[in-house]
Formats: sequence, structure tokens, C-alpha cells
Amino acid sequence: MTEERWFQITYWPLLIASVLFIIAYSLQVIFELSGTAETIARSFVYATWFVFIVDYLVRLWLSSPRGPWFRHHIFDLLVVIIPPLKPLRLLQAFTRVASKRTSQGTALRSRISVYGAGAALILIWVAALAVLDAERGKPGANIETFGDAVWWAFVTITTVGYGDYYPVTAAGRTVAVGLMAGGVAVVGVVTATFASWVLERAAARSSDDDEPATRGQIRAMSKDLTRITNRLSGGPPPEQ
Amino acid sequence: MTEERWFQITYWPLLIASVLFIIAYSLQVIFELSGTAETIARSFVYATWFVFIVDYLVRLWLSSPRGPWFRHHIFDLLVVIIPPLKPLRLLQAFTRVASKRTSQGTALRSRISVYGAGAALILIWVAALAVLDAERGKPGANIETFGDAVWWAFVTITTVGYGDYYPVTAAGRTVAVGLMAGGVAVVGVVTATFASWVLERAAARSSDDDEPATRGQIRAMSKDLTRITNRLSGGPPPEQ
Amino acid sequence: MTEERWFQITYWPLLIASVLFIIAYSLQVIFELSGTAETIARSFVYATWFVFIVDYLVRLWLSSPRGPWFRHHIFDLLVVIIPPLKPLRLLQAFTRVASKRTSQGTALRSRISVYGAGAALILIWVAALAVLDAERGKPGANIETFGDAVWWAFVTITTVGYGDYYPVTAAGRTVAVGLMAGGVAVVGVVTATFASWVLERAAARSSDDDEPATRGQIRAMSKDLTRITNRLSGGPPPEQ
Amino acid sequence: MTEERWFQITYWPLLIASVLFIIAYSLQVIFELSGTAETIARSFVYATWFVFIVDYLVRLWLSSPRGPWFRHHIFDLLVVIIPPLKPLRLLQAFTRVASKRTSQGTALRSRISVYGAGAALILIWVAALAVLDAERGKPGANIETFGDAVWWAFVTITTVGYGDYYPVTAAGRTVAVGLMAGGVAVVGVVTATFASWVLERAAARSSDDDEPATRGQIRAMSKDLTRITNRLSGGPPPEQ
Repeated sequence: MTEERWFQITYWPLLIASVLFIIAYSLQVIFELSGTAETIARSFVYATWFVFIVDYLVRLWLSSPRGPWFRHHIFDLLVVIIPPLKPLRLLQAFTRVASKRTSQGTALRSRISVYGAGAALILIWVAALAVLDAERGKPGANIETFGDAVWWAFVTITTVGYGDYYPVTAAGRTVAVGLMAGGVAVVGVVTATFASWVLERAAARSSDDDEPATRGQIRAMSKDLTRITNRLSGGPPPEQ
Repeated sequence: MTEERWFQITYWPLLIASVLFIIAYSLQVIFELSGTAETIARSFVYATWFVFIVDYLVRLWLSSPRGPWFRHHIFDLLVVIIPPLKPLRLLQAFTRVASKRTSQGTALRSRISVYGAGAALILIWVAALAVLDAERGKPGANIETFGDAVWWAFVTITTVGYGDYYPVTAAGRTVAVGLMAGGVAVVGVVTATFASWVLERAAARSSDDDEPATRGQIRAMSKDLTRITNRLSGGPPPEQ
Repeated sequence: MTEERWFQITYWPLLIASVLFIIAYSLQVIFELSGTAETIARSFVYATWFVFIVDYLVRLWLSSPRGPWFRHHIFDLLVVIIPPLKPLRLLQAFTRVASKRTSQGTALRSRISVYGAGAALILIWVAALAVLDAERGKPGANIETFGDAVWWAFVTITTVGYGDYYPVTAAGRTVAVGLMAGGVAVVGVVTATFASWVLERAAARSSDDDEPATRGQIRAMSKDLTRITNRLSGGPPPEQ
Repeated sequence: MTEERWFQITYWPLLIASVLFIIAYSLQVIFELSGTAETIARSFVYATWFVFIVDYLVRLWLSSPRGPWFRHHIFDLLVVIIPPLKPLRLLQAFTRVASKRTSQGTALRSRISVYGAGAALILIWVAALAVLDAERGKPGANIETFGDAVWWAFVTITTVGYGDYYPVTAAGRTVAVGLMAGGVAVVGVVTATFASWVLERAAARSSDDDEPATRGQIRAMSKDLTRITNRLSGGPPPEQ
């Protein structure tokens, strides 16, 4: 059983699991479920989480060599920590497609925008849930409603930070740090995408003759040269 | 009737409409119009808005194929949501010109700067109006004058976020989120423009001989080779 | 009398004037000069300011054509608004030197860093003075000492914005907006410089053979081809 | 005795010293050491610091020419000011390796990420310690526990700046300014790394024939041409 095979088999089940995860977590936090309802939701959330950890370990175990696999699947490790990020796989698929025909840089850029925006929105939603779950009812806490939590998440990921709402518990602050890191990454991605667009425009040549010479052109010329050399070796045939 | 035709016919009327829109909205909010005056201003604002929505739908309906048109006119969709952005069309025209002769990257960069600064200022002005309209007189609101609203908008779009003023209503926060997103975009554009300038400078060669070879050069050489090949086939004529 | 000539004649006097400007302004604000001392300092400040305005207008008048000159001297217009920026001319000179031999991108980058850091520090110092001058003693103002003003300026230009200090007067807020804009620019320059370094490193080839072909190489080859063509026209001489 | 020799001899001792420095400083600040314990810890901290200053001066003295050495060892000067940064040398070593085989830009980028993340975390840890050391117990200070100090450091380096905690002493603010500068640098590095990735992807060609021609190819062709020229000079030998 190879890692690829396992990945294909578990792809859709895990994607659905992650969607259910986010739904269950949202219900539990937003509607302040209590008693049996909370028990069910919470246990479901932990169950999904467990599934993701198992899946990651299985894939790490199936992979060979393990070192490179680990390095090339940091995103999957991230998903183990934040399972709701799993749906990003769909977007990730898009970007993977884009990377195949990146000759049109615009296609890649639009893909990255879609991917980045999707990641940012999921991060905001999940961070709002997590922070509300951690803060609500704690002494000195000021994030008490989901609306405020979402507002706080937007203010944080854009690094604006008014300070009208901020976490006070260790758990809430840990979530906030992740969100801030996400914010720095978002700014980075947005800027990088703009930069790529500006540079492409600035480097555009007026005529194709001004574009850099290609290896293909040189190879074609080399063929011509070989033909000439051969003719010389064979001497100029006819007119002898 | 093609989409281009419709675009040309409606270009100036819509541009003027958007200017009237922003004037009417400014009057209504800044001078706290009430009674008939407010009714007139507000109805005028909604009327213009309606016109923009109709225009967008008509163009989408005239366009073919629709998919690509939709993707390439995200800016127009944005204008439908924030009609005052319409005047940016003028700046957009400039940049479109620039993109034609981008051999001089500096021209492109100055155009982008003009465009970005214009967009930022319009965003700040409109966001200040919208937030003041949404917050003024609400319980717990602290943005009560237009001066404070403009100050708040600057503090927000630059992602400084002192927290001396911040929206408390759902409407006000929605405007704020849009402004923050605009702020991230502004930072991105500024950085990208600087980066393009630095990279161009850093890549500048001391002599033209060090520039990358062009396709034009190769094509010229290929011609020479063909001439040689022909001469060889025809044999070295005269001196025989 | 050409614009260049005027520029050379006034270069050092204006540079010294700007240094005196910043010293006079610092003394006036920090030591809260009053009575005659303030009158002298203030009048000196305004006198220098007047000189800069006159200089700018004279150069604009001497320049031909005026349009391009205006576009290429935005920095000088900035200096008219913020005379203390004049000393940046010295740093600007460095960067101009760098732009001459930018083959070594590192030289350019270090120059940009020096230039950017210098601009940022002058901006912080002047903004702190201006904001303190505008805010001190005003109702509701919280920036009362020079130390707090400098701290506020750092917090603002880095877009951190704690909100422990913030301007409340129109004048103070205008200064703050300028400082925020400077902050966005600083972030942009820092990022652009890093980006240029990363890209240069990432594009470095292992061997010179992998570098893109140069126009010089092609020109050399074209010469060879011409020689061959000539030989063929003249027929292969000796062995006849 | 050359500078390189000295560097190699002192490399590991200094690295260990810097680790001890950070441990001693952490113990002293976190556990609020007092009496003998504090005296020991503090004196140890100052001793290590002294060692770093001496090492820097010795290397500056051994180096020749001094000017360039100074310019190329800004990082070492930084280490003299913030000794705990010394362990970054290890990461720096990695990046130096990367710069050797940067043909695979991804390797370089991952190295930069590791390096940047490491630097950010060390900065946060040390800044939290220094700010707590400076603020704790001061009148009007609000950073009283190590947990709050670390939280404040994260909020500051990401330039979010809620304002729930901020330094009030000159020493604390000096640390904060350093941390903010670090924050701007972190944002810059993250963005630059993303940008390099996006640009590489956007520039990727569909086939190798579309890649720019290399100097190696041209050199190969020049050889062919020389061969042809020689054959022409020597005449087409055999078949005569």
C-alpha cells in the first residue's frame, strides 16, 4: 500500500469529515450547546480530530523516504493542528493545476488570490470560534458574542488591532498568535501577487524581437550549422 | 448591440452619475440632512445605485462568452457595490495606456502610484461617510463627527489602528472590514511598486553587450546561415 | 541661467539652511521657548521655509520643459513641504551614485537601506516635534512631553499603533497621516530590498554556462559568420 | 593570527556562551531572582556581554581591510548589542550553505523561512524578558508578568498593537522600538519569500525550448563556427 494510494482513498472522506468538523464546532460554540448536545458536538469534534492525526501518521509511515515527505507536507501537518483547513485542499488542487500552465502568469495570480482569500476567511471563521470558546465567561474577558469574535478576527488578521477587543486567556492568546501569523502571511501573499503583476507588466517588451533569445532558437541554428559542416565534408557535390 | 458599444455609450453618463452620487451622499451625511432634503438625497443615491446595477447586468447579458467577461470585470462588480469607485475609471484609463508602452517601467510605476493613491483617497472619503452614517447617534458609538470619521479611516487603511475610534454597529464594522482589506491592498501595491523599481535598478547592466540576447538577434543570424547554405548548394560561383 | 547652474550654486547654502531649520525648530518645541526667544526661533523657521519655497519656484521657472521637470522633482516638492527632509539630498546623492554601477545589486541595496533608515529617522524626529507643537496644552491632548511624542512617532511609523498616545487636534492628525504614509512607504522599501536580495540569490546559477546568453556573445558570432560569407564569396583562395 | 583563524577558534565557545547568556537572563527575570542569586545571574550576564564586545573588537582589529569587514559584519555588531542572537549563527550557517546551490530556489526559501522564524522567536523571547525586566514594578507600568510580556511581544512584532499592554519606561520603550523594527523586517522577509515563489512560478516555461538561451549554448556554437572556418581555410581536403 503506497502513500499515494492511501491519499486517493481517503481524499474525499477526509474532506467531508473536515466540513462536518467545522459545522459541529460552529454549532457547539455559536449556540452555546450544553448538556447532551454539547457532549455530542464536542465528542464529534475530537473524533474528527483523532481521524486526521491517524491519517497523517499513517501517511508518514507509508511514505518513503520519510524526511523529504515530512518537509514537503508541512501543509498536512498544519491541517492536523487546524482540521478545518482541510477544505483548502480543493483550492490547493486549483493552484496545483495553475502551476502546470503558468505561462499565463495571470491564471496563477488569480488562483493564488482565490486560495489566499479562502484560507483567510476560513482562518477568520475558525479563530473567531476558538477565541469565543476560550474567552466567553472568563474573568476580565471582553469577547462575549460571536459577532464581536468575528470582528476581532478581522481586526487582528489585517494587523489593524484597535484594541476594543482582545483575548485575556492563555488559550485565546494562542489562537490570536496563530491568527496574527496568518495576517502577516496574508499581507505577504497579497503583496507578492501584486509585485508579480507589476514586474510582468514592467518587463513586457514592445516587440517579440526584443524578448530574450530561447534555447529552442539556438538548437534550430545548431542544426543548420551541422548541415553546413556535413556539406563541407562531403564537398560541394553537384558542380564537381 | 455589442457590450463594447454599450460601454462607449454609457461611459460618460455613468462617470457623471458616480460623481453626483458621491456629492449627494456627502451632502446627506455631512450636513445631517433631514426631512425632505434627506429624502431627496437618499432617493437620489439609491437611484444612481440602481442605475449602476442595471448597467452591470446589461453588460453581463450583452457579453459573450459570459464566464471570461465576468472574471475580467471584477472591478466593475466592485463598482456596483461601491459606485463612487467609478471615477477610478479615469485613472484606470491612464494605467491602460501605460500598459501599452511599458518598456519604460517608470511610466507604469508612476501610473500605478497615481491610480493607487486615487483609489485610497476615494476609499477613505466614502468609508468615512458610510461609517459616520452607520454609527452616528447609535448607543456606545464613538464616531460622531465627519472629522473623526476621516481620521478613523486614515488610521484604519494604514493598519495603524490606535483604537481611539472604532465602529460598534454591524453596518459600521462591515465598512471597516472593506477599508482594512483596502489597506492591505494599498500596502501591497506600494511595496510591489518599490520592489519593481529596486529590481529594475539592481538588474541594470553596465553595457548593452551584457544584456540578454534577443530573439531578433538570433533571427538575423539565422538569415546569414541560410545565405551561406544557399551559396554552398550553388557552389562558389564566380571564381570557378 | 540654467536650472542646473542655480541648483549647484544653492546646493550647500540650502543644505545648511535645512540643518539650521531643524535645529531652530527642535529648540523652539523641546524647550517650550516663549517671549522673544520663541519669536526669534519661529521667525527663523518661517524664514527658512520661505527660502525653500522661493528656491523651488525659481527652479521650476528656470526649468524647460516644465512638465517633465515637475514630475521628476516630486522629492523637491516634498522638501518644500517638509524642509528638514533636505539633508536627505546627501543620502540621495549616494543612491544616485549607486544607480550608476548597479551591477553589484548589494551596493544598491545597502544604499537604499541607508537612505530609507535616514528618511525614517528624520521623519520620526520632525513628526514628533510637529505633533508636540500642535498637541501640547490642548484640551483632551495626551501627547505632552517630547519623549512621549518620539515614542508615539515610532509606534505610528511601524503601524503598530498601541493607542496609548494619539493626536486629537486637526494639525496633530495631519502630521500623523503624513507619518502613517511614511510608515507604509518604509515597510514597502524594506520588503522591496529583501525581495530583491532573495530573488537575486534564488536566480543565481551554479555555472556561468547556465547564465542567459548576452548580446555581446551574439555580436561576436555574427562577426565570425560574416568572415565565413566573405571567404565563400572570394572562394577558398590558397588551394586553387 | 588572522581574523578567520580567531573566528574558528572562538566559534563554539561563543555559541555556548550565548546560550548560557539567554538561560541566565531568563532565570533572573522570570523567577525575579533577588539577593545573591540575582547578583550571580546579573554578573554572569554582564560577563558574557563583555566577552562578546571583546571578541568583536579583536576581530575588527585582526581584519584587514577594516572598512569592508565592518560593512560585511553588521550582523556581528548586532550580536554584540543582543548577544542571544548569536545562536542564529547556526541558522545563518544553513542559509550560507543554501546560497551555494541556489539553483533550487525552494531550498533557499525554506532556509530563509527557518532563519526568519528562528530570529523572530528569539527576538520575541529576549524582548519579553528585557521589557519585563525594565517595566515590572515601575509606576504606571502594565506589563507585570512574563506571560503578558510574551503576549505583548507577539502583538508588537506582528504590528497588531492592541494597546492592552505597552511599555511606559524609557528602557522598555527602547526594547519595543527594536522589536517593532524586527516586526517590519519579519513582514518584509515573509513577503519577499512569497514574492520569490510567485515570480518563479509565474516565469516557469512550459517547455525547455522556451527557456532563455544560455552562454554555454552560444560557446558550443562558436566552436562549430571555428571548425567551419578552419575547414574553409584548409579547403575541403579528402575529396580533392
